[in-house]
Amino acid sequence: MSPDSTGAWRPSGIVTLLTDFGTAGPYVAAMKGVLLDRAPGLRAIVDVSHEVPPQDLAAAAFVLDAAWSWFPTGTVHVVVVDPEVGTARDILVAERDGHALVAPDNGVLAPLVESASGGSGAIVRRVDPARAPRVGGSATFHGRDRFAPLAAHLAGGASPESVGQASESWRRLSLPEARAEPDGSLVAQVLLVDRFGNLITSARREQLGDARWSFERGGRRAELARTYAEVEPGELVCVVDSHDRLEIAVRDGDAASELGLVRGAEVRLVRDAGGGGR
Amino acid sequence: MSPDSTGAWRPSGIVTLLTDFGTAGPYVAAMKGVLLDRAPGLRAIVDVSHEVPPQDLAAAAFVLDAAWSWFPTGTVHVVVVDPEVGTARDILVAERDGHALVAPDNGVLAPLVESASGGSGAIVRRVDPARAPRVGGSATFHGRDRFAPLAAHLAGGASPESVGQASESWRRLSLPEARAEPDGSLVAQVLLVDRFGNLITSARREQLGDARWSFERGGRRAELARTYAEVEPGELVCVVDSHDRLEIAVRDGDAASELGLVRGAEVRLVRDAGGGGR
Amino acid sequence: MSPDSTGAWRPSGIVTLLTDFGTAGPYVAAMKGVLLDRAPGLRAIVDVSHEVPPQDLAAAAFVLDAAWSWFPTGTVHVVVVDPEVGTARDILVAERDGHALVAPDNGVLAPLVESASGGSGAIVRRVDPARAPRVGGSATFHGRDRFAPLAAHLAGGASPESVGQASESWRRLSLPEARAEPDGSLVAQVLLVDRFGNLITSARREQLGDARWSFERGGRRAELARTYAEVEPGELVCVVDSHDRLEIAVRDGDAASELGLVRGAEVRLVRDAGGGGR
Repeated sequence: MSPDSTGAWRPSGIVTLLTDFGTAGPYVAAMKGVLLDRAPGLRAIVDVSHEVPPQDLAAAAFVLDAAWSWFPTGTVHVVVVDPEVGTARDILVAERDGHALVAPDNGVLAPLVESASGGSGAIVRRVDPARAPRVGGSATFHGRDRFAPLAAHLAGGASPESVGQASESWRRLSLPEARAEPDGSLVAQVLLVDRFGNLITSARREQLGDARWSFERGGRRAELARTYAEVEPGELVCVVDSHDRLEIAVRDGDAASELGLVRGAEVRLVRDAGGGGR
Repeated sequence: MSPDSTGAWRPSGIVTLLTDFGTAGPYVAAMKGVLLDRAPGLRAIVDVSHEVPPQDLAAAAFVLDAAWSWFPTGTVHVVVVDPEVGTARDILVAERDGHALVAPDNGVLAPLVESASGGSGAIVRRVDPARAPRVGGSATFHGRDRFAPLAAHLAGGASPESVGQASESWRRLSLPEARAEPDGSLVAQVLLVDRFGNLITSARREQLGDARWSFERGGRRAELARTYAEVEPGELVCVVDSHDRLEIAVRDGDAASELGLVRGAEVRLVRDAGGGGR
Repeated sequence: MSPDSTGAWRPSGIVTLLTDFGTAGPYVAAMKGVLLDRAPGLRAIVDVSHEVPPQDLAAAAFVLDAAWSWFPTGTVHVVVVDPEVGTARDILVAERDGHALVAPDNGVLAPLVESASGGSGAIVRRVDPARAPRVGGSATFHGRDRFAPLAAHLAGGASPESVGQASESWRRLSLPEARAEPDGSLVAQVLLVDRFGNLITSARREQLGDARWSFERGGRRAELARTYAEVEPGELVCVVDSHDRLEIAVRDGDAASELGLVRGAEVRLVRDAGGGGR
């Protein structure tokens, strides 16, 4: 296999969309119109989210990371969080594990590309405007005019290598990572507050090992449990969630508002003496 | 037909999703990824709602009741409002009128099962984990790891009886019901405030009969009409709505905020003297 | 071609939905259930928006205008913003450029019909209830009971002429239009504030010509640029957006809240002396 190929591109006919456009306006629908118009064989268009906070690349990268791999191989994932729309910033197509990911070269794909492990790796291509289809001609809505036609092209069978050259460089994105302190504790950041008020932190499963961890705030204490329902309603609990991240929750309650913690806040996780598996 | 069968299961290829996950995060998309990955022949995935108030089983049951029967027979309806995720609570598959409904055994399906009338009835099956597919392995996101693979399995042709045993018991859900008072009035609860501020109450069409009803509050009076536009803009009106429930509305206005009534409030409906059909 | 035909109707199998129903309740799902039940060959159902402000016909017309033409010809676009539901108001089917548009006769389709240019034009038909399918029988939810079955009928191949007679009259909708002042300036209205706080105004590209324009408020000044990123973060800028309307934005900021302007506000655009192309 040549260094700029992960094997033949076999589209699933599925396109996912992740933007900061919201769903009130016509923007997402216009993108879907273009997709349906230009890829008659599409099997499905799936909204990942359109509620990324405006221009928040880290939030978009987090949501993408939690969603993309559950789709069939051959899926085209389009990310349009694009503060520099209309400028000369490039568009990237990344291939990882048989999926194609399309986004501006602004860092939003970087964590996913850089976490690709071993021989399979990921390939990043820089789209050549002369080889990519487009519609319209706005300088303000490349979601419709550039990204949707390109995604339709790929979903319809065009290979990533046909639209751009492999590239070894791209914009990076610095994401918060939990750090180990000398006393054995772990200082993590709140990456996301979900709809339940659960606090998803940057502490990863592999950083936790099989130690017992606890968290305290405002006189309340949470221990690491397997699931929310191991504590009584109203009590604080920590779990390793479906993203393999430590999450702080109140059973049947709203941890963010009860603890007064917001996105970006730091939390300290303490390794309990005595230890043993959980 | 044996007592634990409503006839052969013929999937429509349609799956509906009703959750309290919201649409900002990656949760709903991850479920759709699993569905598409495991049921290649799916015709459509339809969002019923993801804005059920967190862990509000009664609200979920109401929304499900108003939506499910409009889909083709053979549709799989998945409800994931699941405060006990990760515990030993069972998953149920109910069959009613040729539809399959999948949800935790927490009461959310009970009203729909118990309202099934006559010979057709409904069959409830308790899913045997050993006979149901799963992915991932989280204790916090069974929507993705248990419900989506099971729904894909059913939508792909597996019969409800192949995944579990018929059961005569399930968790109940007590829903507010309008009650008749000795003076002939009806005391109903506000089940839902819709986006227009209309108040959907627990009073059912069959409780109203063909009497004339009225409602008063704060010096304003509403009479039962056939449609909103029978009164002038700004006036109060009662209608029997598309759920066959009495609804209190302000034409071109917001009844909830104008009347100061919220979900759960009680309203008294008075049977007018004189009577006759409307 | 006869005056009441734009050519044979060739459905694309795509239906779009634009309502003021919101997405929390069961309303949109019930419409989709009816569509899927009655049009087995549907290729896709696309949500244009369900967040039109309640009963705001102008907002719905704006969103429709920005979305419909990007879909394949043969698409059925359904608009249900319908304050007069249940009354004798007619339902219209308009044909324009091979698309079918279905809505109440309340003005919401008027801008789209009236802007159709030249020989192709648009044809408006008034639906004959006796020739249109229906389900249910509510007086409050024609989206489900009238519009969805009618859209399924058209998407399944029934021609617009088979359900109604061509009509030369329909309800009008007056939309704000930017007006030229004697001093050469242009007074425009804010049509929409988008999720980024960008102010989309009624000033159209053709009203701007190739003059240089600027806008001032609160000591801040914006000049017309090609794209947001031509100014520094935090600075004010005007662009001609993807709707061909002048838009006022703050780069990486929220113009609406920073300038204290809301939907409906008037803004004055000044033609700069010196001129020349931009």
